[in-house]
Amino acid sequence: MMTAEQYEESIRALNCEVYMFGNRLENTVDNPIIRPSMKAVARTYELAHRPEHKNIMTATSHITGEKINRFTHIHQSIKDLITKSKMGRLLGRETGCCFQRCVGMDALNALSIVTYDIDEKYRTEYNKRFLSYLEYVQENDLTCDGAMTDPKGDRSLPPHSQKDPDLYLHVVEERNDGIVVRGAKAHQTGAVNSHEIIVMPTLSMREAEKEYALSFALPSDTDGIIYIIGRQSCDTRKLEGGMDQGNLFYGGHEALIIFDNVFVPWERVFMYKEYDFSGQLVEKFASYHRQSYACKVGVGDVLIGAAQTIAEYNGVAKASHIKDKICEMNHLNETLYCGCIACAAEGVRERSGTYSVNTLLANVHKHNVTRFPYEIARIAQDIAGGLLVTMPSEQDFRSPETGKWLKKYYKGISGIPTGDRMRILRLIENLTLGAAAVGYLTESMHGAGSPQAQRIMISRSIPMKEKQEAAKRLCGIKEQKSS
Amino acid sequence: MMTAEQYEESIRALNCEVYMFGNRLENTVDNPIIRPSMKAVARTYELAHRPEHKNIMTATSHITGEKINRFTHIHQSIKDLITKSKMGRLLGRETGCCFQRCVGMDALNALSIVTYDIDEKYRTEYNKRFLSYLEYVQENDLTCDGAMTDPKGDRSLPPHSQKDPDLYLHVVEERNDGIVVRGAKAHQTGAVNSHEIIVMPTLSMREAEKEYALSFALPSDTDGIIYIIGRQSCDTRKLEGGMDQGNLFYGGHEALIIFDNVFVPWERVFMYKEYDFSGQLVEKFASYHRQSYACKVGVGDVLIGAAQTIAEYNGVAKASHIKDKICEMNHLNETLYCGCIACAAEGVRERSGTYSVNTLLANVHKHNVTRFPYEIARIAQDIAGGLLVTMPSEQDFRSPETGKWLKKYYKGISGIPTGDRMRILRLIENLTLGAAAVGYLTESMHGAGSPQAQRIMISRSIPMKEKQEAAKRLCGIKEQKSS
Amino acid sequence: MMTAEQYEESIRALNCEVYMFGNRLENTVDNPIIRPSMKAVARTYELAHRPEHKNIMTATSHITGEKINRFTHIHQSIKDLITKSKMGRLLGRETGCCFQRCVGMDALNALSIVTYDIDEKYRTEYNKRFLSYLEYVQENDLTCDGAMTDPKGDRSLPPHSQKDPDLYLHVVEERNDGIVVRGAKAHQTGAVNSHEIIVMPTLSMREAEKEYALSFALPSDTDGIIYIIGRQSCDTRKLEGGMDQGNLFYGGHEALIIFDNVFVPWERVFMYKEYDFSGQLVEKFASYHRQSYACKVGVGDVLIGAAQTIAEYNGVAKASHIKDKICEMNHLNETLYCGCIACAAEGVRERSGTYSVNTLLANVHKHNVTRFPYEIARIAQDIAGGLLVTMPSEQDFRSPETGKWLKKYYKGISGIPTGDRMRILRLIENLTLGAAAVGYLTESMHGAGSPQAQRIMISRSIPMKEKQEAAKRLCGIKEQKSS
Amino acid sequence: MMTAEQYEESIRALNCEVYMFGNRLENTVDNPIIRPSMKAVARTYELAHRPEHKNIMTATSHITGEKINRFTHIHQSIKDLITKSKMGRLLGRETGCCFQRCVGMDALNALSIVTYDIDEKYRTEYNKRFLSYLEYVQENDLTCDGAMTDPKGDRSLPPHSQKDPDLYLHVVEERNDGIVVRGAKAHQTGAVNSHEIIVMPTLSMREAEKEYALSFALPSDTDGIIYIIGRQSCDTRKLEGGMDQGNLFYGGHEALIIFDNVFVPWERVFMYKEYDFSGQLVEKFASYHRQSYACKVGVGDVLIGAAQTIAEYNGVAKASHIKDKICEMNHLNETLYCGCIACAAEGVRERSGTYSVNTLLANVHKHNVTRFPYEIARIAQDIAGGLLVTMPSEQDFRSPETGKWLKKYYKGISGIPTGDRMRILRLIENLTLGAAAVGYLTESMHGAGSPQAQRIMISRSIPMKEKQEAAKRLCGIKEQKSS
Repeated sequence: MMTAEQYEESIRALNCEVYMFGNRLENTVDNPIIRPSMKAVARTYELAHRPEHKNIMTATSHITGEKINRFTHIHQSIKDLITKSKMGRLLGRETGCCFQRCVGMDALNALSIVTYDIDEKYRTEYNKRFLSYLEYVQENDLTCDGAMTDPKGDRSLPPHSQKDPDLYLHVVEERNDGIVVRGAKAHQTGAVNSHEIIVMPTLSMREAEKEYALSFALPSDTDGIIYIIGRQSCDTRKLEGGMDQGNLFYGGHEALIIFDNVFVPWERVFMYKEYDFSGQLVEKFASYHRQSYACKVGVGDVLIGAAQTIAEYNGVAKASHIKDKICEMNHLNETLYCGCIACAAEGVRERSGTYSVNTLLANVHKHNVTRFPYEIARIAQDIAGGLLVTMPSEQDFRSPETGKWLKKYYKGISGIPTGDRMRILRLIENLTLGAAAVGYLTESMHGAGSPQAQRIMISRSIPMKEKQEAAKRLCGIKEQKSS
Repeated sequence: MMTAEQYEESIRALNCEVYMFGNRLENTVDNPIIRPSMKAVARTYELAHRPEHKNIMTATSHITGEKINRFTHIHQSIKDLITKSKMGRLLGRETGCCFQRCVGMDALNALSIVTYDIDEKYRTEYNKRFLSYLEYVQENDLTCDGAMTDPKGDRSLPPHSQKDPDLYLHVVEERNDGIVVRGAKAHQTGAVNSHEIIVMPTLSMREAEKEYALSFALPSDTDGIIYIIGRQSCDTRKLEGGMDQGNLFYGGHEALIIFDNVFVPWERVFMYKEYDFSGQLVEKFASYHRQSYACKVGVGDVLIGAAQTIAEYNGVAKASHIKDKICEMNHLNETLYCGCIACAAEGVRERSGTYSVNTLLANVHKHNVTRFPYEIARIAQDIAGGLLVTMPSEQDFRSPETGKWLKKYYKGISGIPTGDRMRILRLIENLTLGAAAVGYLTESMHGAGSPQAQRIMISRSIPMKEKQEAAKRLCGIKEQKSS
Repeated sequence: MMTAEQYEESIRALNCEVYMFGNRLENTVDNPIIRPSMKAVARTYELAHRPEHKNIMTATSHITGEKINRFTHIHQSIKDLITKSKMGRLLGRETGCCFQRCVGMDALNALSIVTYDIDEKYRTEYNKRFLSYLEYVQENDLTCDGAMTDPKGDRSLPPHSQKDPDLYLHVVEERNDGIVVRGAKAHQTGAVNSHEIIVMPTLSMREAEKEYALSFALPSDTDGIIYIIGRQSCDTRKLEGGMDQGNLFYGGHEALIIFDNVFVPWERVFMYKEYDFSGQLVEKFASYHRQSYACKVGVGDVLIGAAQTIAEYNGVAKASHIKDKICEMNHLNETLYCGCIACAAEGVRERSGTYSVNTLLANVHKHNVTRFPYEIARIAQDIAGGLLVTMPSEQDFRSPETGKWLKKYYKGISGIPTGDRMRILRLIENLTLGAAAVGYLTESMHGAGSPQAQRIMISRSIPMKEKQEAAKRLCGIKEQKSS
Repeated sequence: MMTAEQYEESIRALNCEVYMFGNRLENTVDNPIIRPSMKAVARTYELAHRPEHKNIMTATSHITGEKINRFTHIHQSIKDLITKSKMGRLLGRETGCCFQRCVGMDALNALSIVTYDIDEKYRTEYNKRFLSYLEYVQENDLTCDGAMTDPKGDRSLPPHSQKDPDLYLHVVEERNDGIVVRGAKAHQTGAVNSHEIIVMPTLSMREAEKEYALSFALPSDTDGIIYIIGRQSCDTRKLEGGMDQGNLFYGGHEALIIFDNVFVPWERVFMYKEYDFSGQLVEKFASYHRQSYACKVGVGDVLIGAAQTIAEYNGVAKASHIKDKICEMNHLNETLYCGCIACAAEGVRERSGTYSVNTLLANVHKHNVTRFPYEIARIAQDIAGGLLVTMPSEQDFRSPETGKWLKKYYKGISGIPTGDRMRILRLIENLTLGAAAVGYLTESMHGAGSPQAQRIMISRSIPMKEKQEAAKRLCGIKEQKSS
């Protein structure tokens, strides 16, 4: 397993084509806007070496028997699934942001199931390829980006009816040694902190869309792969440095990844033309990834801790309405925790041996994640007070002309430096309006699928007949099937 | 294990002193208002003999190794805890009401822990007594009532300051062979369907309240125990019979139990004067019992099934807003399910060997139960349409004068008899306004403790310092303890 | 203006054909199940004679200049519209239930506009007929039922495609002196307490449905009109009498009205075949009637008062969580009040001179009424405590055998008779589960149109282009129309 | 009345001592971070000259009879109060942000009442002074800042017990010609765009705090008044310019105002030592200002318009779940509108002749403003899609290297330039996470008082006895007072 330092060096050694603010970046690792997100990923390496987190952060490879970082592990039991949820919460609390590495884990696990099932039907060799790729990932302790979402263009049209065929990623050339692909993947969290990009289709394909039914993996700095970094609320505060950032250490980033006629060798292709399995891959990945929103419980922990702290600094922590609001934040946050634990506890063994989460409950969990963090954030803003958004800059605080006034007039209870009060408010700003709100709120809404995607899966997964039969039996309606 | 029929006979054989509408009942088993609740308990016996439910409904006694009804089992593993939640959902769906038997199971499990812990501290013999009692319960497959809530009088005063000392149940005489107790227990669900009454204190007692720190068990027809049955919404429809009852088979009942100087032999006393353990007993029982609200997920299944059915009968099941509302009902119901699974999956082994649910999550679960069923019921009424509350009686439907009009004008889609449409509406009425609403709504609010009780436990169980340290670390506040 | 006593006698003098529980009723006025609803209507007569309510309860007829009961008034100003909302709240608070008389007022006002507009287009004489009918109603101070909702059968089909053409009320014969109609109107609140039945179409008709585009008025005891009374939760408690009814004086009732080939003379026909105006009539009536849900604010007042009272009796009124819950109930209730005031304050003068409420805001108001009473009721149950649904009957309370126990063990704070505690709990039961819950909850959901009907009107009434232009202008999108 | 241009010049002519990012600003009018907020105020001048907005934007002075900008008007009728709410909505929609000028209007109106009432009791001349000041404000069409909130320090202590007596603004010297004051006012929206600062006490003072019971007005560039500008989310995007700002034209700002021994001549003092009126001044101002949150309905209009637009650009505007979400946004927004109309429609005439809003309903209105905009924003993010927070910068869009990719891959439906899609998303970002979220969300929470302040006022304003009497009467509890 790599250390955090080794991880940083390994990313520095990559040669990705990355753009931000219209310019190519020579070096992402030291770029102040991207560095906090690299540091968040590095934390997943660091904690794996800490004895107190070993049980959560590491696992034993089912292919090599070696101790590996859990982020490269294929779940072998319900306990593995539950531990994954706990790992997400832990890292969310440690970083206060999106640590980006779950998506690759979820892609690996989904592929471990689907490649097996395709092979069973079509006598293909995808699973063998996949396992050899997995061994490489585990041995080198790599961070993988799981890339699913295509740009989609006009959403009322299917892939092959789009005016521009590239709006869904597809094969443009088939060669002896592999395939050439073109298209893009949007909303790629942590893309430029990844060693590998694992591509999957974004929806269930039909026969006419065979060349879109496609999964493969490539090193992130492969020729023809281009990254354009997305903006975030308050992104440029990271250029300022200092306490106005709120979270001094960690952050996230998003990128659009373009595949400009990129070559993929056959040994890295895990699905191609088996359109009848594209839906399964989407669903397996989505379910795992919806579970992964366990992390927001950890980010919620940070926001609750911050709210409690500002209440103490303001001298109102004992007011009954404040205690009640803190309780409500915790209640909502722990309700989310129940979701990510339950979908794991109700997991099942797939034919490949991999354990899957319960699809229905994973969707229910994620659906709550599209709601409760917004309410938790709203309550946090309530507790924080108006100073949250009226407080001058750190430069004002440090300036001799204005600093004296701020120290005098922003003093809360005695014993607490005014600066600490400002710091905790900046953290709440960061989580509810700033860079981390992108992850805690908007990503909670759309990551791993938007709310409507979960509603469709919930409706589809519910055994409605069973419920109707129970109801009919109790009120004496006869035509029901025998139960 | 008893059959349903044997259970009915065993209850019929009891000689309890029961009052309803101001009169003593000779026979509760055949009383039309109580019988449906007896039938609901009987269902817990019946399903234990069904092969398809065996895994859920039965367990192996850890004291005798015999196969027993799970309702008499002491949880020996996390799997037992999870299965308990599933059993609750199953029976809720089977009966569409409160099946009453969980409370005794929860009392037995709580006592298995607390008697052990008292003995460890005080070298008493409570656990031995308890285990011998447990064996008796398991062997005879008994239904126990777990009786906790005292009348409490003026709630701003503690037990020993009440004007009337009997407002909390207490010992009034100590004899060589046992004790004599006086007081009452309110809100006793299913009391007269029980073979045994297990009494526990209602709150954490202090030294001055020693004689209130009391737990014991007695046969339900012991001399001096008096039952007064509580009214329920639409209770007298059960006297009418027929489809206007909504649920044709099952229901619940509540009773006030009065202990009018009742003698308890020492071998049935499980706590007496160890006030320092009264809080633990309350908390353990409450946590188990909050988990038990898994049953409401099953009742929710029935209500969702009924809502889907009436939508079909009305010809609107495909309307997008109807589908969306059904989805929301399911989402809320499954969120509840997550809670009762998660508190089980995060259970822990007590020193006695019994497995406890996670206290925090059990409280979070129950707290959601005080909210979501009301919203599910509201949506069900939305889908049902106004006919839910404007529909004439079954007598009108059967009368030659009016029946023809109802058949003509209450016809929905073709192929569905008007009577079936009326039946399913009556079931929704039963669950949202009628007798079952008492269980699905008000009992969801107050059973196993009112919402504020959960909020207190949630606030107390949260590791707030940990969250504050995480927040402070991220924004650079120094004074936190090292982590 | 009639007195309450005169009103009662006038209803007693009617000879309506009414059925309940399969039998024809000789006398509805003294029937214990119907009498409370007659008494609620009577209250609208009684208060009009009270000096302190004169401003609210009476108005000056715009046709005769006489002082009339406001329930027969055509709104002549915004002040009239606002006063109507206040009258609704007042009577809701006075009766704690649905007082039934608003629907006729709303029908009269809607017809005052639409008959005028039809005449303008078609040179008909509907408005003249209507005004002469109105004068009759005002002079005799009559209660009118406004009957709109047809049974509808299979809701996926329009009126003329139903298997049974009578599932929407229609003309079956045209004569020299009038028309003969057949069909039914469902969910007719207070039908048998009305002197007159005013019929309107239930939806916007098309040309093929001309004979369904129909409005007329008839005396309620006209030959061929048949009433079948609907059941309500806890309806038969009214047969018991006493405090278990909760509300000792008032209630509501619903009926299915059947028109079995009923003759309507031309002078009582207000629309016939002008299908292009049927939508307007539905919309005008619906908007007025959605405003009328002002009454639920008054019922909410009663429930809030009851919740505060039981909190005091339980000795918990000063607990911060209780005060907070009472505040939330009030906040929600007053938010509803804002809605019924605002739609009146934003009213407009129609060409006929009648003032209409603001359609958008009336729909918004009613839509909140489909939500907030449920939450207010939920909180009331929270504050009430479990005794709400476990309390024995009044007979138990009066019985010498059980009464002593109830008086002892249901004692709350000192100074309050146990019976008073039971009474206030029964009132809360009545409003949240019992007979009044039908009006406070389910009728709030479906009366004056179900939630989806309001959503359709809200979506239709919103000036979306205006909002989009504002947004586009601010972010620099050019193609917008100039504003 | 000034034009927008004259207004800009008048502000440019001021010589305020303003700091931002630690430095003194020479010129706030052209400072890119402050200019958008100046432009928003300028809009209040501009619209007053537009014929189509004349009725809303102007009024007739009750002291001079001249036509004046409504922002300087004292409300003379309920119509004035209602028009004020409409003006707020109009300007919110025009600017998409906080236009800052309402607070001065609210201060003037509150003082018009309280100075009159103080004079009546104490025979002082405050009202005369005030009216002469008002005439000056009206004639010169000035923008006033209403400054209420003191820093408050340790909130568990009253003003005179604070360690630092300046944490509440107070008189430090009394002279023949006036007083000298010291202290600060926090959260001053639009402070440096104001000609005048009107100071009021922040809470009800007691006798020991007489020198804090203080109200006065001063030109904003008076010696000793210092402004420190607060940061906002994404504030520095305004330095970048261009479409990444979201709102290209308007914004807000907040400042801490320090009074460093500032002299106030007697003719500008409107309250001094009449502590028994400080509570009334706070309450009158707060009620008016809570009404002023009518503006958020207008900002909501912009956000709804933006959500509808992105739905169209994404090709999903006809999806039923999207239409339903837009409907919900509108429903919530119009519910807010009902609040600000209703508290105006229920206004009352004060002894001074000024019309006050209904205190209870103004608080209810504002309380909903602390909730619904957050939910509207959440839904807007749902509709917007993930691109909202993953979209690269305008520079990337304009760069030849990356622009081609963005144009290709961010294309939505045909006919809409990719740039327009990005613009509308940036506007939604601005309103839900960026600079305008400060106003639309956090200011909605805390402006004009935090939620708990409204709950206290709601609880205090409710006639609870009346409700309890209604409840008791209906269930037969006797001890109530006659009604």
